[in-house]
Amino acid sequence: MILVNGVEQEQIEVTDRGLHYGDGLFETIAIVNGRPQLWQAHMERLLEGCHRLGIPLPDVAQLAAEAAAACVGSGRAVLKIIITRGSGGRGYLPPADAQPSRLLFCYPWPAHADDAAPITLRLCRTPLSCNPALAGIKHLNRLEQVIARQEWDEASIGEGLMCDPSGHLIEGTMSNLFVVRAGELLTPDLSECGVAGVMRRQVLALADALLLSVRVTRLAVAEVEAADEVFITNSVLGIRPVSRFETVQYHDNPLTRRLQSALRERLEREYA
Amino acid sequence: MILVNGVEQEQIEVTDRGLHYGDGLFETIAIVNGRPQLWQAHMERLLEGCHRLGIPLPDVAQLAAEAAAACVGSGRAVLKIIITRGSGGRGYLPPADAQPSRLLFCYPWPAHADDAAPITLRLCRTPLSCNPALAGIKHLNRLEQVIARQEWDEASIGEGLMCDPSGHLIEGTMSNLFVVRAGELLTPDLSECGVAGVMRRQVLALADALLLSVRVTRLAVAEVEAADEVFITNSVLGIRPVSRFETVQYHDNPLTRRLQSALRERLEREYA
Repeated sequence: MILVNGVEQEQIEVTDRGLHYGDGLFETIAIVNGRPQLWQAHMERLLEGCHRLGIPLPDVAQLAAEAAAACVGSGRAVLKIIITRGSGGRGYLPPADAQPSRLLFCYPWPAHADDAAPITLRLCRTPLSCNPALAGIKHLNRLEQVIARQEWDEASIGEGLMCDPSGHLIEGTMSNLFVVRAGELLTPDLSECGVAGVMRRQVLALADALLLSVRVTRLAVAEVEAADEVFITNSVLGIRPVSRFETVQYHDNPLTRRLQSALRERLEREYA
Repeated sequence: MILVNGVEQEQIEVTDRGLHYGDGLFETIAIVNGRPQLWQAHMERLLEGCHRLGIPLPDVAQLAAEAAAACVGSGRAVLKIIITRGSGGRGYLPPADAQPSRLLFCYPWPAHADDAAPITLRLCRTPLSCNPALAGIKHLNRLEQVIARQEWDEASIGEGLMCDPSGHLIEGTMSNLFVVRAGELLTPDLSECGVAGVMRRQVLALADALLLSVRVTRLAVAEVEAADEVFITNSVLGIRPVSRFETVQYHDNPLTRRLQSALRERLEREYA
């Protein structure tokens, strides 16, 4: 089901600035037992994105009601919410009276999300550009990911990692990256580049609760190659262990499994 | 008038990848005496963009026919063409069978485009990010311009200049930048960042025909401040002289006027 500004329809105005400029934001949310997971964190990131772009803040209670309507009857599903600045303005300057558009899409739960087997990563050539004005938020300017995702078509490769222009690893095309090295959990700093994933934030909170040593840092390709464990995260996949990155194999993943258990417990407690 | 895939309508599928990812390109074309100006150069850039993004190339003859239909009866107008990859695919990977969408918008000629008075520029804080994969083409990921354009609302300021992350000037939010210094014409190199404007290309060709000394180069803010003349270009404004950049005033602009004359002659010859 698709809801556009609360109405079930499959069309949007061609003047919408989401289409013309990517002038908006989105969230991709797991629906489990009919309820959106980590809703609060998704809404916080969405509101932060609206604030950063100068888009009027959506009514979160209204979004929650529409999310329930869009996903009614779905035990498990994926909810995508798009907020654009709405229509209008000839040129880049937003009109003062822009009315944001709300689009909610309820998709079937993807079969691959249940596959717990560790996945293989590749290194993408397409760089992620740096811009502190856009870093962290989940905006609609996603051409870099679209180009990177076209670099491979082997079904055996589950995700591609992307670097910033200076060659530091930032994230996957659709996921965040964590590595374990000498008992320490490392994840790339996203202050200039990348999307600050809701599941990434959740994993950092779990690691904190488990008193793990955590470092948010610059991460070179060689450091990922030399890691003891590697995993990726997103809201639908959760925590997904990595068995291989290009030619490097990873064998055991005890800390990854510990975090997976902690995540499962946390979500079961909250969404039982 | 708005044409979507050849049909007069004002809606588009909400599944279009132009909306979800900015997965597409656009052109903004001056219509003069009912005819699109510099059509060939616009189409070349559009096709180059499709090639770079892996979007099937549009049929240029069909676009020309639809442009004529969208702008019929308009002596002067602005034609915007958007090509998106079309609908489909859950996630960044484009579907193998994507059918690109064609959107043509015919807008009234803007009054400010006839104002020949030199304009005032400001320096924007929002940076333009660097990515050779996206540089030069006129793609739909335009949040940087949208954010930059919100930095000012004084009607006295005609355009804002944007720098790359290393502080080199690249272009305006909606125009390209040229400066004249010691008789030499300079314009920023766009191989990593920025949009290679059709009017910029035309000006470079005119400068070549006039045997001017031209350099496509990195350009520091101080070099623009120290310039003898500054002008900006785009397809609707043509060549627009600059009287002021922040606190710096420019007084005479003989080379700018010479290029304006050459452009006028060139366009009159071709579109008489």
